[in-house]
Amino acid sequence: MTAFSFEIVAEDAHSAARAGLLHTPHGDVPTPVFIPVGTQATVKTVSPDELRQAGATIVLANTYHLYLRPGPDVVAELGGLHRFMGWDGPILTDSGGFQVFSLAANRQVSEEGVTFRSHIDGSLHLFTPERVIEAQEKLGADIVMPLDECTPYPCSYEEAREAHRRTLRWAERSRKAHCRPDQALFGIVQGSVYPDLRRESAETLAGMDFPGYAIGGLSVGEPKEAMHAMLEVCVPLLPREKPRHLLGVGSPEDFFEGVARGMDMFDCVLATRIARHGALLVREGRLNIHNAAYARDPRPIEEGCACYTCRHFSRAYLRHLFQSQETLGLRLATLHNLHFLFHLLADIRRSILDGTFLTLKEEFLATFRPIPEEVRRNEAARRRLARSPS
Amino acid sequence: MTAFSFEIVAEDAHSAARAGLLHTPHGDVPTPVFIPVGTQATVKTVSPDELRQAGATIVLANTYHLYLRPGPDVVAELGGLHRFMGWDGPILTDSGGFQVFSLAANRQVSEEGVTFRSHIDGSLHLFTPERVIEAQEKLGADIVMPLDECTPYPCSYEEAREAHRRTLRWAERSRKAHCRPDQALFGIVQGSVYPDLRRESAETLAGMDFPGYAIGGLSVGEPKEAMHAMLEVCVPLLPREKPRHLLGVGSPEDFFEGVARGMDMFDCVLATRIARHGALLVREGRLNIHNAAYARDPRPIEEGCACYTCRHFSRAYLRHLFQSQETLGLRLATLHNLHFLFHLLADIRRSILDGTFLTLKEEFLATFRPIPEEVRRNEAARRRLARSPS
Repeated sequence: MTAFSFEIVAEDAHSAARAGLLHTPHGDVPTPVFIPVGTQATVKTVSPDELRQAGATIVLANTYHLYLRPGPDVVAELGGLHRFMGWDGPILTDSGGFQVFSLAANRQVSEEGVTFRSHIDGSLHLFTPERVIEAQEKLGADIVMPLDECTPYPCSYEEAREAHRRTLRWAERSRKAHCRPDQALFGIVQGSVYPDLRRESAETLAGMDFPGYAIGGLSVGEPKEAMHAMLEVCVPLLPREKPRHLLGVGSPEDFFEGVARGMDMFDCVLATRIARHGALLVREGRLNIHNAAYARDPRPIEEGCACYTCRHFSRAYLRHLFQSQETLGLRLATLHNLHFLFHLLADIRRSILDGTFLTLKEEFLATFRPIPEEVRRNEAARRRLARSPS
Repeated sequence: MTAFSFEIVAEDAHSAARAGLLHTPHGDVPTPVFIPVGTQATVKTVSPDELRQAGATIVLANTYHLYLRPGPDVVAELGGLHRFMGWDGPILTDSGGFQVFSLAANRQVSEEGVTFRSHIDGSLHLFTPERVIEAQEKLGADIVMPLDECTPYPCSYEEAREAHRRTLRWAERSRKAHCRPDQALFGIVQGSVYPDLRRESAETLAGMDFPGYAIGGLSVGEPKEAMHAMLEVCVPLLPREKPRHLLGVGSPEDFFEGVARGMDMFDCVLATRIARHGALLVREGRLNIHNAAYARDPRPIEEGCACYTCRHFSRAYLRHLFQSQETLGLRLATLHNLHFLFHLLADIRRSILDGTFLTLKEEFLATFRPIPEEVRRNEAARRRLARSPS
């Protein structure tokens, strides 16, 4: 594991926030970091060059999707995920757990693993901890995740306990199965919204000495307060010197709250997905480009924004592209939202180095209107699906 | 019209081919040139920067589409088409004639103009020569076209004569209506496949002394021989020192045949449209990226191709993007096909300067398999539409 390490560069005196550097075989990642999601080995609508220019330092790809199509063997044969998708920076692959529990049909969990039907062609598959590790070793990401059982919200205490304990046993099996020395296998903390389960999960995983830790099963519908409380329970139990990834989170406001509680890494489809629906992130919240008010608006999405879109195009043109269903619109919107998040995280990092993190947090949250629920509705729909009987 | 001029740089000794330079207010265009089609003020899937990098020197936009959405007033208010779409090079807008006769419903032609219903919302509109010029003056392209009546194929002699003579009267009205000194208004030769009508059209237009000439109504279903014959009739009647644009053409083989007969400019959606269906242009013809044979193919689309796609991605990855319905695939395919055509035209130009044009033509046509009709089927569908009763 010498190829992977985490270095803490600064710690905030007034919160659990820290600035770090993740060293990986494919380069360094300054933290806190937002990781864009490239589900099918592509961050939807943008090229690797554009990602880099927008400020990406690491990309996430979904094991579940790539397992089903084109398959880990194909990717391995083509030189691994980095070469396959033309991204030579660090890559993280998730465990597939969340996708099996949110996208796949007919899932059956047993101690061995989880069987499910592909959302693409209905074919039957079995994910075991060992098989998921094997798939990720073939894909070849820098950071990989063990199969976990992601519980929906709400979830009974008994269900949550059973799932999180199985996740711990799967983590142990994953650790034994994992061989590639150039990959860092993280542990995933589960336990729903139950503090004692979260505590048990974090402590047990900390004892297994993973090179990094992820916190899963949050931002799945629970109140924000519950998410914050769970972070406050877990983080102090995880080793200080290891990176901490908050899976599937989130929104600009979540980054501040997560960083304040000691999280280093975040990934989420929200910003890229809402971009494709015409919701553009601005300092005050968001702007719906479909709005007729922008039909003749010569201004960029946000004055002073240095993203490719804002440097070249007006709101009026962007609205025209969306009205005309031109795919260039999806790309320009995605580039802007990605740039917004990358630079927000860079600002957060700088504020930690400067000792002004809490001031920045307070200023930002005082004026930023969180993304309303109806705009997140696709995300919500996926969560409803996760509640459906398997 | 001082802002616009055409300079002949070299003429082939063995054919009517010539190499030229089109001087426009937004820069020079080496000819022969392929002009990509940006129907709705965007060449589908690609950004202006990418267009430039792929080799574009001039872009075409459709008056019909932009008239309906967002409307010429909106574009004018936003500083004109160049600023609106972020392309600071030369732009050509077509007359809308072809689109009215192929896309719009309920069209009624009279001496005044043509009424039609929008393909977007069914609203009723009237295009007159004056109104089309007014719209194009607001859009602000460097080269503009007069409203013409585009006849389908086949078309009776009487119909063709009536339509082409009306087109001539409309050309005269357009010339009178056109005021902007920074725009070049071309004349459009019509006359279907009837040599005497084509002759009458070309001679009459030549007498009106336009700064450039377009030949319309070809490549609408007639045999290639008929198209070639019509070019051979028209070109000698058009002033040698003026540029000649073959509207809506075409395929790689068409460029050679057109250039050999004295044409300087070409535009067509074929290459970009088939790209979005996964048909990629290669030296031998085309490659269908959906083919399972490419699932594990590590090679670029074409060995030695310097396009962005070929420099970064394998056939296997491109196939994966198409199979997974990722829009990045559409863009990468489009960039390759555009690069292919721009560089083919650059090769043709170089061969004219070198005096080797006919050799290049012979070599190319000996091994290039023309795009089969089923691949062009979308184009064919549009043409069938053009035959439907109005």
